[in-house]
Amino acid sequence: MDFNTALYTDLYQLAMGQAYFLKGKHGTEATFDYFYRKTPFNSGYVLFCGLEEALDWLEKVSFSREDLDYLSEQGFDSGFIEYLADFKFTGTVKSVAEGEIVFPFAPIITVTGPVVECQIVETYLLNCLNFQSLIATKASRIRYISGEDKALAEFGLRRAQGYAGLQASRASFIGGFDTTSNVLAGKTFQIPITGTMAHAYIQSYDDELTAFRDFAETHPDNCVLLVDTYNTLNSGIPNAITVAREMEKKGKKLIGIRLDSGDLAYLSKAARKMLDDAGLSYVKIAASNQLDEHVIRSLKEQRAAIDIFGVGTNLVVGHENAALDGVYKLCSFEDKPRIKISENLRKMNFPGQKQVYRYFNGNGKCIADAITLEGLEAPDGMAHPFEPHKRMPLNPALAEPLLQEVMREGKRLSPVRSVRDIAAAAVKNLGRLPEEHKRFDFPHVYKVGLSSEIEQMRNHLKSEKLGESGT
Amino acid sequence: MDFNTALYTDLYQLAMGQAYFLKGKHGTEATFDYFYRKTPFNSGYVLFCGLEEALDWLEKVSFSREDLDYLSEQGFDSGFIEYLADFKFTGTVKSVAEGEIVFPFAPIITVTGPVVECQIVETYLLNCLNFQSLIATKASRIRYISGEDKALAEFGLRRAQGYAGLQASRASFIGGFDTTSNVLAGKTFQIPITGTMAHAYIQSYDDELTAFRDFAETHPDNCVLLVDTYNTLNSGIPNAITVAREMEKKGKKLIGIRLDSGDLAYLSKAARKMLDDAGLSYVKIAASNQLDEHVIRSLKEQRAAIDIFGVGTNLVVGHENAALDGVYKLCSFEDKPRIKISENLRKMNFPGQKQVYRYFNGNGKCIADAITLEGLEAPDGMAHPFEPHKRMPLNPALAEPLLQEVMREGKRLSPVRSVRDIAAAAVKNLGRLPEEHKRFDFPHVYKVGLSSEIEQMRNHLKSEKLGESGT
Repeated sequence: MDFNTALYTDLYQLAMGQAYFLKGKHGTEATFDYFYRKTPFNSGYVLFCGLEEALDWLEKVSFSREDLDYLSEQGFDSGFIEYLADFKFTGTVKSVAEGEIVFPFAPIITVTGPVVECQIVETYLLNCLNFQSLIATKASRIRYISGEDKALAEFGLRRAQGYAGLQASRASFIGGFDTTSNVLAGKTFQIPITGTMAHAYIQSYDDELTAFRDFAETHPDNCVLLVDTYNTLNSGIPNAITVAREMEKKGKKLIGIRLDSGDLAYLSKAARKMLDDAGLSYVKIAASNQLDEHVIRSLKEQRAAIDIFGVGTNLVVGHENAALDGVYKLCSFEDKPRIKISENLRKMNFPGQKQVYRYFNGNGKCIADAITLEGLEAPDGMAHPFEPHKRMPLNPALAEPLLQEVMREGKRLSPVRSVRDIAAAAVKNLGRLPEEHKRFDFPHVYKVGLSSEIEQMRNHLKSEKLGESGT
Repeated sequence: MDFNTALYTDLYQLAMGQAYFLKGKHGTEATFDYFYRKTPFNSGYVLFCGLEEALDWLEKVSFSREDLDYLSEQGFDSGFIEYLADFKFTGTVKSVAEGEIVFPFAPIITVTGPVVECQIVETYLLNCLNFQSLIATKASRIRYISGEDKALAEFGLRRAQGYAGLQASRASFIGGFDTTSNVLAGKTFQIPITGTMAHAYIQSYDDELTAFRDFAETHPDNCVLLVDTYNTLNSGIPNAITVAREMEKKGKKLIGIRLDSGDLAYLSKAARKMLDDAGLSYVKIAASNQLDEHVIRSLKEQRAAIDIFGVGTNLVVGHENAALDGVYKLCSFEDKPRIKISENLRKMNFPGQKQVYRYFNGNGKCIADAITLEGLEAPDGMAHPFEPHKRMPLNPALAEPLLQEVMREGKRLSPVRSVRDIAAAAVKNLGRLPEEHKRFDFPHVYKVGLSSEIEQMRNHLKSEKLGESGT
């Protein structure tokens, strides 16, 4: 399946494209902002993820002859189809760096180019960035609650949403996981892969001990034994201890055992004691079975003796939100700022081409983001975006612009960043976020505000539009 | 991205494969069952979906030279890699038909073949079938509550989980949706595509009326106008009425208007009255904005004047479960039935190669599924799988076997079924399910049971294994 086709879009993008084309407006320059409104998982932040893949797609996207024939069958105008035959994305993209933390309502990406191009690429950008940011955020929360000393293994492919399993493994690694079970993701993104064995392997033998022995013999350097097929404490762990001792005689070491059912806190402590008593304190304990950040938090509170958490379904589908509400809104057309009116101030967009500045305190921790118009310096104060009486002074000397040009005329401006680099950046960026925004219970709301210039522009356009529509 | 690679699997499948291979057991015949344990969405059933894609993958799957090089770098045994160079799936698949309704614990697919092949394909089968069945089930519930007279449009691609958007559109159509916004899905699966316009299109104009006029002019035969950019009742609908009248003068008809914010029940009724008063009773009203089966149920109760429901995010990610818990369990190896022991009877599998019979009443409605051993006739009674004292007599004269051979020696036995055929079959199959299993509140639990032969086999193996493990 080739996903580099521009057909991976919503029909209405092409319908609008035809309207622009037939009216001769398809080349008019437009700017769209990508941002989200609500953090998932009751998180205090979102970890931005998916940019490299999005840029890759933007560089490659086109319509094949077969695609155009299909659009012709669907009744599209022949002149418009001819135009699409040479379709490429030729616009400019400014973006927050992948692996950076981002907050509600502040633009994360801005896309500027001929309006038809900007519309056609909208659907894929949202699809790619919403999903990967969702999963990276979930992964970062699991890392946060697990602590740096635990190993985190992602193995959600079997319950991932179809082909999204590939992207989920990438985003999980960027969010802080150490390994994936997904072999294709390992190859595609050069991330470490790990895996043990299934119950089926044990069941295929008449007895568990022989199954363990054969596995150890055929995997002398990376043997992890699944101990709960028949009875964890009475069969699985004693047999694993037997095999670990046999391995020692050959100069090898059993890497670990895996618990996959039952009370993981109780079983892990019992297993630790049995292993330690047998002189096998080096054997690690891995645990799995519907884990997520909440279960891991509980296991940590109970001082479960678990070294490796294996997390699947809940991570890779981003349970319980399963979607990030990112949107892509027109903010400028033909050099004029544009706005959508709503009774709900939160549903109105911020007009005009913009920049976002992030402010730090003297300790290097980020404290606020201010949205202003492009080309302006970092403001020395900002207003709450929806409660304008709330204002906050800012120190421009400690501000950094977040949106950087990453693509010009449809070409990347920098080499592709490796997934490992992005993951390392994420660690650094999360380290600059104060603890109160990372905590699970009622995280402190990070401050995002508007410069006076953008506030005035919004108020002006709002009055103008409301005047026109007669209310 | 090529997903037809056998690398789209969990590493442990290959780790177990190497153990089997080095012990000379890789060719040993095994049978695995695919089934699920818990219905999502508090539904009374699951609509089985994804089989055609799974069979397609099984026919095509292989390792490329590049894949093998990657495995070699990962430390796999060179003999095993040589074996994988010729890897193909050569097994037999028996399956319930795609578009059939299925219930917890009854096998939906059985896969028989050399154990290494069965293991390597496990991950993809689960990934594909779990996700598509989840979405088809969600779609069927939305269809059920909407009624047959409403049009249902799926447009979730922007919030779908990455590449899974393609599969989500397919499954939504099979579950009862009429159209998708996803152009690639339309082309790939020959399903109808629909789309209107975004707020951005309206905002790109200085005024809404000109935007509407231009769209109507460039889409004379399929014009649906989005009316909430500025003010639905004071601007959007009056402008749409103006344009509808102008279209009439050219012999054209406005297809519809779309509401995308505000109180959809109130606005739709007000819009209906305004359109009717203007002599435009043929203009349909579409509504969208975070719809799902629960919101639609409420809108129906309020008698909202909505003809077309547009459903996105909540459908395509299968909110709020986001995953179906389908599993793939070894039930036979080297002609011997196999079992996994658990303190929880629900976590034990049913051993042996099996068939499932579905029983109907005199009105053609299905009333129970009985699991028995392959080769046996439909039983005349069954026991509850986990509460053996509960028994139920059955009439074998009204039973049909559900598992049919669909693939032998790695080749399909029938031509590919079209998505439309499967969707039509789903309508028929859902029609045979009594209403009490389809209702939203406390659906009646459909009865799935065991024949005496399989019950005895389970009890025998359980005693044997518990004896061995010393408990």
